[in-house]
Amino acid sequence: MKTVILIGAQGKMGKAALTGLGDHKVITASRSGKGTDYQVDITSHESLRALFKNVGAFDAVVNAVGHCEYANFVDMTAEQWELTVQSKMLGQINVVKIGLEYINDRGSFTLISGIHNVKPIPGSIADATTSGAIDTFVQCVANELPRGIRINVVNPTVLEEAWDVYGPMLPGFQPVPGKLVGKAFQRSVDGFINGKVLFVDA
Amino acid sequence: MKTVILIGAQGKMGKAALTGLGDHKVITASRSGKGTDYQVDITSHESLRALFKNVGAFDAVVNAVGHCEYANFVDMTAEQWELTVQSKMLGQINVVKIGLEYINDRGSFTLISGIHNVKPIPGSIADATTSGAIDTFVQCVANELPRGIRINVVNPTVLEEAWDVYGPMLPGFQPVPGKLVGKAFQRSVDGFINGKVLFVDA
Repeated sequence: MKTVILIGAQGKMGKAALTGLGDHKVITASRSGKGTDYQVDITSHESLRALFKNVGAFDAVVNAVGHCEYANFVDMTAEQWELTVQSKMLGQINVVKIGLEYINDRGSFTLISGIHNVKPIPGSIADATTSGAIDTFVQCVANELPRGIRINVVNPTVLEEAWDVYGPMLPGFQPVPGKLVGKAFQRSVDGFINGKVLFVDA
Repeated sequence: MKTVILIGAQGKMGKAALTGLGDHKVITASRSGKGTDYQVDITSHESLRALFKNVGAFDAVVNAVGHCEYANFVDMTAEQWELTVQSKMLGQINVVKIGLEYINDRGSFTLISGIHNVKPIPGSIADATTSGAIDTFVQCVANELPRGIRINVVNPTVLEEAWDVYGPMLPGFQPVPGKLVGKAFQRSVDGFINGKVLFVDA
């Protein structure tokens, strides 16, 4: 049994991840802190450092959050780009950078991206661009993590559990059950794979 | 003959791009402005807007710049990430966003990334991650550019002209002549391709 920190446990993707982490001791965190063990803001180095210090020893970090702004490219403001880059991209890089100082030997990080970098839709340009950045980051940084530590990223399509909200914007997309996405997180945490983009699509 | 704005004309990559643009009227710009027609800083919306306004009508923008910081991941500071993201990633996105307001119908943008997103080396994590972002951005945003405007990105390996400087850091890499990279820029500017990553590697 591993000790796993799940960031974003209250979101639909966090709940999907949780379905794959049942064999482990899961410590939950979320931006609001409501209904979770800890509060954390991945855009803040200090907030992440406090989380990892307070948890103590842990074997894995699963991040299931990253804020994205949605707009057509010609309408997307510099502020919307900044918000997306600081959270979905640099926020997740922060999780790894600071988490590395505290995680156990042979631990693992699992990040989240999203299918629009390979299946773009109107409005998704910032989501797609930062997902492409994170998929690339994971494949490259895996070569230089110390102490046997691994890193992967789950790149899911839309969840069945979110289809009522997002379905109308996603013509021709097939949602997948959260439990299938949970299995990708499980493969990352429980396996030996490293530097992989785990697409969960249909 | 097209009017082409070449940003970063003084760098080795800009000079490589220029070898492919000989059929056109090329207007040059660089950060310092020394030896070029205009001065421009791609991290500044105002600076880019001034460039495009001052040039007047143009058919293509070729960007051959983007500052990257190099360090091992565990040593790379938040400031180094910011510098790289603001220049190589968001700077190039600025070029397209603001350039779109001024470029002629059926014009084109050609951006620059770099081979380390598919061939990572020690120290290249910020370069690789932002190259992955730009390659993804180009492939996705091509679907939503108006007025028949196209966009591509050239993703080159190291230039023969820079091998004396970078060769020692690139064991097992084969440099390519700047003229070959120039041909990729030419294919983007003179062709009808759109949303493509033009790898120039050996």
